[in-house]
Amino acid sequence: MDSLNIDEVNCQVKGWLKEARENIIHAFGNPLSVETKSSRVDLVTNMDKQTEKFLVNKIREFDPNAKILGEEGFGDNITNLDGTVWIVDPIDGTMNFVKQKDHFAIMIGIYENGIGKLGFIMDVMNDVLYSGGPENGVFANENKLDKPENTSLKDGLLGCSSPMLMMDYNHLQTIVKHSSGARVYGSAGIEFIHILRGQEIGYISHLKPWDFAAGKILAETLGITVKTIDGSELDMLQSANVLIATENAQEDILKLLNSF
Amino acid sequence: MDSLNIDEVNCQVKGWLKEARENIIHAFGNPLSVETKSSRVDLVTNMDKQTEKFLVNKIREFDPNAKILGEEGFGDNITNLDGTVWIVDPIDGTMNFVKQKDHFAIMIGIYENGIGKLGFIMDVMNDVLYSGGPENGVFANENKLDKPENTSLKDGLLGCSSPMLMMDYNHLQTIVKHSSGARVYGSAGIEFIHILRGQEIGYISHLKPWDFAAGKILAETLGITVKTIDGSELDMLQSANVLIATENAQEDILKLLNSF
Repeated sequence: MDSLNIDEVNCQVKGWLKEARENIIHAFGNPLSVETKSSRVDLVTNMDKQTEKFLVNKIREFDPNAKILGEEGFGDNITNLDGTVWIVDPIDGTMNFVKQKDHFAIMIGIYENGIGKLGFIMDVMNDVLYSGGPENGVFANENKLDKPENTSLKDGLLGCSSPMLMMDYNHLQTIVKHSSGARVYGSAGIEFIHILRGQEIGYISHLKPWDFAAGKILAETLGITVKTIDGSELDMLQSANVLIATENAQEDILKLLNSF
Repeated sequence: MDSLNIDEVNCQVKGWLKEARENIIHAFGNPLSVETKSSRVDLVTNMDKQTEKFLVNKIREFDPNAKILGEEGFGDNITNLDGTVWIVDPIDGTMNFVKQKDHFAIMIGIYENGIGKLGFIMDVMNDVLYSGGPENGVFANENKLDKPENTSLKDGLLGCSSPMLMMDYNHLQTIVKHSSGARVYGSAGIEFIHILRGQEIGYISHLKPWDFAAGKILAETLGITVKTIDGSELDMLQSANVLIATENAQEDILKLLNSF
C-alpha cells in the first residue's frame, strides 16, 4: 500500500491477533515441540514458527508490497526501512510460554519509512491487546490509556534482564539500588505492558528489533523514552542494550552512569 | 477451640478473605498512606494495617483462644507454637501493592501445636484464592490442584530475591545459571503461587514467618519442600534464608552448593 490506512490496519491486525491467540491456547492441549537456538535457554517451539507463518501470510495477503522482519525467519531479509516494514515477534517470552503457559506476548510493530505507526502487544493469557500509535493513542482492549506519571528512578520499580543484573552490566546493580527495586518477568512484551500501565518506571535489557519494535511505538506515544542505554537512538534493524524509561527515570539513570 | 474443624475454618476464612479483598480494591479509589519501616524500600500502608486489624478481629471472634502472629503487630507476642496459631500477612508484596496495584497477596497459615493445618493465599487482583492443607488437598478457588511435576533445576524457572541475586548470596548466580532462568516477582505469595501451579521449580529468599507460613502448608501438601537454604527445618517463629523447591530441584541445588 502507498500509505497506511490506520483504521483499516488496526481492524485487520486485531482480527489476526485474536485468531493467533486462540490457536496458541488451543495448542496447549497438544505436545509442544521445543528446540534450542543460540543456547540452552534460547528456545523456539512449533507454536512460535506456526504463529509467525500465520501472521506473515496474513500480512502478505493484506499488503503484498510490505517488507516483513520476523524473529523466526519467515519474513524477508531486510537491509533498510524504506516503505512499509512489519516487524513480528510471534511469541515473546518463549521460555515463559514453555515453562509457565503464561506471561508471554504476540507483538507486531509497523513502520513507514522508519517512522513507527502502529504497535500491537497481545497479552495472550490475560486476553488484553495493547495497541495504537502516535495518530490514535494507546489502548488496552477498548480502554484508552493515560500517559503514565513521569516518575523518578527512586520512586519506581525497574524491569531488568537477569543476566545483566547478575553481571552488573553497566552498573545495573547501582541503578537498581537507587530505584524501588528490580523485577524480572522474562519477556520484553510483559515489561512494556507494565511500563505502559505505570507499574514500572523502566526496563533495561539486551533486545533484538522484534523485542522492541511494537513496544517502542506504544511507549513513545505515551511519553516514555525508548533508546539505547547511553541515550542514543535505536537502529530498528540492530540488537542493542535498550533502556525504556519515563523521562525522569532516564535522566536519573544517565546522571548516575555519568557519575562513574 | 480444642481442635480445628477444617471445613468450618475453611468456610469462615474464605468469607473473611473475600471481604478483605473487596475492601482493598475499594480503597484504590482513595489516597494511600505509605510509611517506611526498616528501610527506604520496606513499606507499610494504612491498608496493610487495616487489613490485619480486620483479620485479627475476625480470628479473635471466631477462636478466642487462638494465638495470632501478624506482620504489622496487631496479633500477640508469641514465643512458642503450642495450641492453635494463626500467622497473618495482610498484604504480602506491599511494594507491588503501592507501585503496581497488582501482584500482591493476603496470606493466612494456621498451625496446631506446630503442625500446618490450613494455608490461604489470596491473589487479590486475579481474584484467585489458593487454599487447603494436608487433610483436604490444595485448591485454586474451587479447582483441586494436581501435584506439580518433580522438575529438575535445569528444566525450570527459579524465583529469586533480587538483593540476594545481586550480591550472589550463597552462590545464587551459579544456581540460576544451572536453571532455565531467574524470575523476580517481588512477593513471596506470588512466587508460592507460581510454584504451586508448576510455573517455577523454586524460590530462594530471606523470609519472615508470615511470608512463608501459608505457602509452606500448601506447598508441602503438593510435595514441594520448604526448608532453609541448607536443607534444615524452618523455625516458624524465626526469619530464615528459605529454599522452596521441587524435591529434584532441591537435591540439585544442595548438590551444587556442596560442590563449592
